[in-house]
Amino acid sequence: MKFAEMLEARSSSANTLLCVGLDPDPVRFPEPLRGVDDSIFQFCSAIVDATADFVCAFKPQIAYFASAAAEDALQRLVSYIQTAHPTVPVILDAKRGDMASTAQHYAREVFERYRAHAVTLSPYLGHDSVQPYLEYDDRGVFLLCRTSNPGGDDLQMLNVDGEPLYERVARLATTWNSSRQIGLVVGATYPNELARVRAIVGDMPLLVPGIGAQGGDVAASVKAGQTSRGAGIVVSSSRAIIYAGQKEQFAANARAAAQSARDEINRYRVAMD
Amino acid sequence: MKFAEMLEARSSSANTLLCVGLDPDPVRFPEPLRGVDDSIFQFCSAIVDATADFVCAFKPQIAYFASAAAEDALQRLVSYIQTAHPTVPVILDAKRGDMASTAQHYAREVFERYRAHAVTLSPYLGHDSVQPYLEYDDRGVFLLCRTSNPGGDDLQMLNVDGEPLYERVARLATTWNSSRQIGLVVGATYPNELARVRAIVGDMPLLVPGIGAQGGDVAASVKAGQTSRGAGIVVSSSRAIIYAGQKEQFAANARAAAQSARDEINRYRVAMD
Repeated sequence: MKFAEMLEARSSSANTLLCVGLDPDPVRFPEPLRGVDDSIFQFCSAIVDATADFVCAFKPQIAYFASAAAEDALQRLVSYIQTAHPTVPVILDAKRGDMASTAQHYAREVFERYRAHAVTLSPYLGHDSVQPYLEYDDRGVFLLCRTSNPGGDDLQMLNVDGEPLYERVARLATTWNSSRQIGLVVGATYPNELARVRAIVGDMPLLVPGIGAQGGDVAASVKAGQTSRGAGIVVSSSRAIIYAGQKEQFAANARAAAQSARDEINRYRVAMD
Repeated sequence: MKFAEMLEARSSSANTLLCVGLDPDPVRFPEPLRGVDDSIFQFCSAIVDATADFVCAFKPQIAYFASAAAEDALQRLVSYIQTAHPTVPVILDAKRGDMASTAQHYAREVFERYRAHAVTLSPYLGHDSVQPYLEYDDRGVFLLCRTSNPGGDDLQMLNVDGEPLYERVARLATTWNSSRQIGLVVGATYPNELARVRAIVGDMPLLVPGIGAQGGDVAASVKAGQTSRGAGIVVSSSRAIIYAGQKEQFAANARAAAQSARDEINRYRVAMD
């Protein structure tokens, strides 16, 4: 099955566009997991089990594992998700971007070592830096297009022949997408720009971080980002869900936060087929 | 000591602008190391010892370690370089690029876990994505500016208000550089563009990959990239040096290739102070 088909099948069967971002930061862990052995895996797998009913994808952020030398925990976590929740795709948020043989090694890392279904990539090195990932024809990539941070403007809003760079990146992505494995990352903090991107890319999947802790507008983002069929977006929230509780019931708190986010998103969807 | 000072001190004392890139690909290892336990560390440390006399820096490419689940070998390798060759800076080629708290975790990975002296970064997310690395005030960053791959044109040559995007990135980098920790990556395959970047950035360090296997022009690159003092560039070669030999004498072959590259580079330098 192609990645986009897997994603849409899950969105449809579980009736959700919510992605839970797994950013395990031990200093923010709930009390019962402070100083516990293997706490990164314990925390993430508890969040996964508590929220899986409400998600169309999980998005581990590799920086949090790498800073803690916890690559092994990440491998086990993806494996755990694929065993316990096999219909939920895993998007590895890694924002890789390199050329030729190096990109092949990164592709091997994300798709063979971690066995992610999709990965986030930077577009700065161009089409040939993306190609090695597309050789894995059942996997997907999300190219950074318009990011939700303040400095995102520095490059992404530069005027390229009358349009901002992020729109040009969206346009380029459509020309690189003959195999239909490419999606884009567009932050929820700019709903108008999300609408511009949607107009450019047809039904390409959009990964939309920035709701929750970053303050993105859910209603505006869903309305602007969804396809005419009420799909095509993956709305990602991390901290507001995974750190919803700090005590013994942290997983139940995360579950409630995920359900609430899923329901809020669905309020603004057009009905799916 | 600041990173740029460490780099210049090493360039000056060892009379070299050559950086050896450490891209350990087990399928290309010399015969004596095929199938050997811990071969990635064994190979890299042998190359390091054989070539150290001729380098101003080593540049491990993290993708090769990550695809092989060899983070531990990378940690030991950097530690080994810092013990055996303490005046040689280590530039971790990681091309990271992410925002805020995630960037802090990547910075912790490269500067605390791996203890690199500098790291390569993507500029696509703008100034605030670079800032967390600059908090480590004795370390440096090299932002991707003009890359040596064919697809580099896709974004980097886009016309931004009359100048190509890569020149705008160079100009932005100078405005982000009040702490003088920033350098740029500019491929050796485009010497004219290297000259344009040098004209924009003053004496900012430039990391110049693309000689050797990628066919960049050494004479043109050194002439275009060096500062008026015959410094300010780090000319990186990986495969042409580390895979110079395939038999027992692979390390001696690498040493000879490094010496030859160092000497060729120096032929086109203006004299240092």
